[in-house]
Amino acid sequence: MSFGRAIVCHDTHANSGWKMEQVGVRKPGEGELLVEMIATGVCHTDALIGDIPGGAAPIAFYPRVLGHEGSGYVKEVGKGVTVAQPGDPVLLSFAFCNSCAVCNAGHVSNCNDFNSLNFGGPYKDFTLAAKSDSPEAEKVVGGGFFGQSSFASLSIVRQCSVVNAKNLVKNKHELELFAPLGCGIQTGSGTVINAAKAGPSDILLILGLGGVGLSAIMGAKVQGCRMIIGVDRVESRLNMAKELGATHTIDGSKLGDKTLVDAIKEIAEGLGPHIAIDTTGAPPLINAGVASIRNKGRYIQVGSAPFDFKLEFNMFEFMVAGKTVSGAIEGEAYPPEFVPKMIGWYREGKFPVDKLVKFMPASEFEQALKEMHDGTTIKPILRWT
Amino acid sequence: MSFGRAIVCHDTHANSGWKMEQVGVRKPGEGELLVEMIATGVCHTDALIGDIPGGAAPIAFYPRVLGHEGSGYVKEVGKGVTVAQPGDPVLLSFAFCNSCAVCNAGHVSNCNDFNSLNFGGPYKDFTLAAKSDSPEAEKVVGGGFFGQSSFASLSIVRQCSVVNAKNLVKNKHELELFAPLGCGIQTGSGTVINAAKAGPSDILLILGLGGVGLSAIMGAKVQGCRMIIGVDRVESRLNMAKELGATHTIDGSKLGDKTLVDAIKEIAEGLGPHIAIDTTGAPPLINAGVASIRNKGRYIQVGSAPFDFKLEFNMFEFMVAGKTVSGAIEGEAYPPEFVPKMIGWYREGKFPVDKLVKFMPASEFEQALKEMHDGTTIKPILRWT
Repeated sequence: MSFGRAIVCHDTHANSGWKMEQVGVRKPGEGELLVEMIATGVCHTDALIGDIPGGAAPIAFYPRVLGHEGSGYVKEVGKGVTVAQPGDPVLLSFAFCNSCAVCNAGHVSNCNDFNSLNFGGPYKDFTLAAKSDSPEAEKVVGGGFFGQSSFASLSIVRQCSVVNAKNLVKNKHELELFAPLGCGIQTGSGTVINAAKAGPSDILLILGLGGVGLSAIMGAKVQGCRMIIGVDRVESRLNMAKELGATHTIDGSKLGDKTLVDAIKEIAEGLGPHIAIDTTGAPPLINAGVASIRNKGRYIQVGSAPFDFKLEFNMFEFMVAGKTVSGAIEGEAYPPEFVPKMIGWYREGKFPVDKLVKFMPASEFEQALKEMHDGTTIKPILRWT
Repeated sequence: MSFGRAIVCHDTHANSGWKMEQVGVRKPGEGELLVEMIATGVCHTDALIGDIPGGAAPIAFYPRVLGHEGSGYVKEVGKGVTVAQPGDPVLLSFAFCNSCAVCNAGHVSNCNDFNSLNFGGPYKDFTLAAKSDSPEAEKVVGGGFFGQSSFASLSIVRQCSVVNAKNLVKNKHELELFAPLGCGIQTGSGTVINAAKAGPSDILLILGLGGVGLSAIMGAKVQGCRMIIGVDRVESRLNMAKELGATHTIDGSKLGDKTLVDAIKEIAEGLGPHIAIDTTGAPPLINAGVASIRNKGRYIQVGSAPFDFKLEFNMFEFMVAGKTVSGAIEGEAYPPEFVPKMIGWYREGKFPVDKLVKFMPASEFEQALKEMHDGTTIKPILRWT
């Protein structure tokens, strides 16, 4: 048993259930690593999962530790771990089984066990009390969120979630900066590059310009898409999109008499984009995105829609237009290959992730969440040291 | 003005509005050919369009001549025609503008003007009376269905719909046999080959084993798919599917306690197919097909769903599973390239279209429709000579 700090969710965030506390962490088992976190990006998925009332879904239970964009140094490894050794810097990503038919076909982000491995549990990794002789020492706190539960200074991490950064990062600051690569930034850019395979002839629409949306803009710029249209309602984000490569932006709060679909088509040659990617999960934007694509266009869902939202469209018209609707998770990336690619683009100056982030002490996680929600900060990164 | 016979739809088929009549045919204009038909395949799309009450949709008007799987010999060409000369044998396919952004991007089957060019009109190609001095000579009968209206012994054909068969067919019999290549057979096989790009590692599900579905089976066999599952309720079609390469069939009328989705997954490794193609347009089969695909699976709509049918699915689950739903038209084929490919596979014995067809005199079109609907005949071909 080791001891550290963690943001423990005792209940939903809305119910003020998230608290920084001392926790005990068990020893790593087979295929697991004990990682000393130095930084963790904050993502809307943390806020989403940590606001579902306990028991309302199989993946909603408390107490637990969230966090899934961690980076740190390996402290100890369990049996059978080959990905890294104690002392190695690591960047963390999502979990996958690496043995089902879907993983074997190379689609690890759509692993058959994705839900249980990333959202499930409770995996008994933490205990509530800081000292093993406390009367509360037995109270289990769930870990294993995305195989890492990295809203903690010390956590048990599954081997599948680890990208060894020994030959990738130059120093501790870079390890902090690259913490969000393994989820939000990979999701945005990977959707454009791996899922959509966008190219120079494509007109691309990105709905929502948070961390994922702006990373999609960076990905589109890397791919050289001829038109990149960003949609948001926060002016600073629209400006950032332009700085990162958007050729056009639409302020959804200033449409006047136009519908969003009209505004998009007007920019996109009157026909609509070849590819539309929604990073918001907001039903009106989803519907507008699906409606906006041109014949033979492709729409890709990336943002988490409300769990009960059903997409609905006229099948005959959809067919005649030759359209496609897809879902994509984690940018369809294989992190051990895609994370080094993103770092390479960053070094070439084509992928300025540093423009998206703001570092804050982990103790200020409430402020970080607030700034992420109101758009002041695109990607808060909590520091644990 | 020339004269010939045509199946004139004065009203819906349900209202007994289809009649073989003598018609006048105008001279071909710019970019048009006058073609003497020798054979025309019968397709469900003819039955579908010719049963919409006049005025119920912009594409529903009478009188008109349907038919869109024609073959014949060029009799006369209008100005600017380069695709064929008088005397050339031709195989006919769908119409496209060849100048919009979608056509220019190579997706001619999703042409921006597909609906108006293939279903629209009325194009004033025919007149009702056989002799120009008849009092009814002025009564216009719409042509141009799929750029060809080939339910006629003589018709005006748009240049875009023509595949010159001079170097493709050996004799008149082959020209008759290949008549349906340009629509139903291309739609089925092209969806597997061009749209799905199915390969040897794929498990493929084909819902509905009419002309399109069985052509999809042939396409899957050409591609060497490792498992090919066919679903229908007509025993002779299920047997034909096996003969053409299906590794498994499901008789939808004999499911017992199982749901269709259960029956499909049971065969497909418990996970479902990689690719599902619906050729029926029947909502229960569409829903089962979408529900059956595995994570990262792709569903492709090919059959015409009822015009008011809306597909509906849970967006969050769809996204996490990384699924895709697409529509495909005409097998995403470029007929001048794909028709010769199909003929090549036929000559190699890999694409036995002759097993699907039954030749009947054009005068027996009612019987042909009946046999197509009840499944006795898969692909009726009407002969005009």
